[in-house]
Amino acid sequence: MDIANLRIDANRLRADFDALTEIGATVAGGVSRLALSNEDLEARAWFANRLDDAGLAVRDDDVGNISGVLVMNGSATDRSVLLGAHLDTALNAGRYDGSVGILAALECLRTIHEAGIHLPVNLEVINFTDQEGSWQSMLGSRGLTGRLPDFTMRDGDDQSAFRAALFRAGIFLNDMHRAARQPSDVAGYLELHIEQGGRLWASGKRIGIVDGIVGRTTYSITFHGEAGHSGTTAPEQRHDALQGAAQFIIEAHRWVRESIPDGIFNAGNLVTEPGAFNTIPEKAVLTVEVRNPDQSALLVMEDQMLVLAASCAERYGLRMTSRRLVNMPAAKMDAPVRADIEAACADIGISETTHIVSYAGHDAQMLSGFTPAGLIFIPS
Amino acid sequence: MDIANLRIDANRLRADFDALTEIGATVAGGVSRLALSNEDLEARAWFANRLDDAGLAVRDDDVGNISGVLVMNGSATDRSVLLGAHLDTALNAGRYDGSVGILAALECLRTIHEAGIHLPVNLEVINFTDQEGSWQSMLGSRGLTGRLPDFTMRDGDDQSAFRAALFRAGIFLNDMHRAARQPSDVAGYLELHIEQGGRLWASGKRIGIVDGIVGRTTYSITFHGEAGHSGTTAPEQRHDALQGAAQFIIEAHRWVRESIPDGIFNAGNLVTEPGAFNTIPEKAVLTVEVRNPDQSALLVMEDQMLVLAASCAERYGLRMTSRRLVNMPAAKMDAPVRADIEAACADIGISETTHIVSYAGHDAQMLSGFTPAGLIFIPS
Repeated sequence: MDIANLRIDANRLRADFDALTEIGATVAGGVSRLALSNEDLEARAWFANRLDDAGLAVRDDDVGNISGVLVMNGSATDRSVLLGAHLDTALNAGRYDGSVGILAALECLRTIHEAGIHLPVNLEVINFTDQEGSWQSMLGSRGLTGRLPDFTMRDGDDQSAFRAALFRAGIFLNDMHRAARQPSDVAGYLELHIEQGGRLWASGKRIGIVDGIVGRTTYSITFHGEAGHSGTTAPEQRHDALQGAAQFIIEAHRWVRESIPDGIFNAGNLVTEPGAFNTIPEKAVLTVEVRNPDQSALLVMEDQMLVLAASCAERYGLRMTSRRLVNMPAAKMDAPVRADIEAACADIGISETTHIVSYAGHDAQMLSGFTPAGLIFIPS
Repeated sequence: MDIANLRIDANRLRADFDALTEIGATVAGGVSRLALSNEDLEARAWFANRLDDAGLAVRDDDVGNISGVLVMNGSATDRSVLLGAHLDTALNAGRYDGSVGILAALECLRTIHEAGIHLPVNLEVINFTDQEGSWQSMLGSRGLTGRLPDFTMRDGDDQSAFRAALFRAGIFLNDMHRAARQPSDVAGYLELHIEQGGRLWASGKRIGIVDGIVGRTTYSITFHGEAGHSGTTAPEQRHDALQGAAQFIIEAHRWVRESIPDGIFNAGNLVTEPGAFNTIPEKAVLTVEVRNPDQSALLVMEDQMLVLAASCAERYGLRMTSRRLVNMPAAKMDAPVRADIEAACADIGISETTHIVSYAGHDAQMLSGFTPAGLIFIPS
């Protein structure tokens, strides 16, 4: 049978979607399946049952990734093309985020299986653990590609809640590294995801072929001043940590807006100490991130951001310290895979495609560099 | 005996000071006697015993003020000159704050008592409840002058902890208004306090005659924006509450610094919601205060501050709401009392006096307008 004539069962896909959407449904009409929560565990169990029903070989690994393999020859651990996404969601997330990729891949495998099509490699639909980062962003795809973050305890970090959450899902922190596969065991990676920026929707195109995924680094930046009575501390004696932080917020946004059209800066949180009406703030701790589709440009942004923070601190007589927390490197999607996606679209008569950059992180980012990886956006 | 020849017993005063300093002493060398805490209750009991030892009539009222009256004729409830201050402190405060005024007044009464001096009015040393505002700024002096704040529950305020703390000190919230005295029962008010701005110390003068006490108003100002994914929300769709708040902090400080030399602005706390790395802040709640020694200038400052906040909000596509929390009106000290202080200094040979404005609040602020009130600063 010619693959171009294959058609999925849209009713079956919709039924799966409706069933999955019930798990963790919120009154607001969204879905909450935080990674490793009861809802996530329920969705994973539901997914494993669907894999079994579809006649796929159910497989899991030490970081909690669950997959269903359409075995072409030999065994489920032979070389596979991975079709991945994630069942976990952010708090009260949209219903399509992640699930669409999982269910579309499952439906493709069922369709290919039923058509009796033979391919030279296995096909494997895979649910990655904690893509959203309720605990650790892209934990599952990091584990599979051998790029787990360093879980050494840092000052003030306590991993006990994370360990307990992992344990409930049958995952042991110290064993997670065993989930790493060899690149030779993976033939490629493909992910389908909704586009979250609204640009694809606005463009009127049906398919977005992702050229690259933005890199992202998060920092904790602390401005250290000196507490003092607001009424009685002389102006020249003031070392107001909050003023330094405020100046930095304003200038960092302006700098990125004016000088780095592809870059993004966000200051998401600010904590002030001691935090009283009549006390000059001693400490202001900022939670920030920078994003850039180009990895070397991202690193330059990080340096410039810290220079700016130090300069704002100095102007207010403050000391600045920073801690680099998480770096998700920018990733280019594989050029032949992108060409294949475009050709496949043409084969089935979809001409409304466009090339696009993803400003949100996806597991494809972790797979890139490990195996030829592609990411397909659909409008949302 | 001539009053100008009276001398206090410096050793007795020092012994009292050393004993009081032990109550709530911190390892850092300061003192923590938060109002209505165990330490405050212990200090109050210690003080009542000292009043008794001194042969003064011990008196208390429904807002927990404790006083010792040197009765000249008739009874302890006859017309008195009040000599006030406070035993409560802020967290890890200096040892002289408040206590010096209480102990100096007590020592004066003991000395006058022992000298058998007769005056036409009673003298009363009084400890005011919660001057510092651990619960409610200047609760005791507000109660005595019949200016208790409105304790009606506001949205989100729960008075139960306050009620419980009062109860432990034998104070009932609904009875506190009974502490109000008639102006005709009070002949005047005098307070001695350390100067906290270091200006008196720097001036080399020994006595600061306070002309006025700064007025102070506190606000909660909230900037309301819209949460969004930092990576995928288009620039024109961003309504970043934290940027609006940061802009306001910078501009408000600049405005007061450049245009209101006598005014003070402080942004003491900032809380951001939801507070994630990758989420544009939806809400930024600022804790601010303005101070001005002139009451009408203070009211103008408040208006201008809110106009500025609204303008910053508008520039970032935000909505601004504000809540006026506490207003301590600016107070002028009584001119004849000030002249009396100056004359008394001259009588005992202290020529190094200076006139000064207090940028911190004191109970004298509440007594002003109720009775002729004076405030004496000593260097710290």
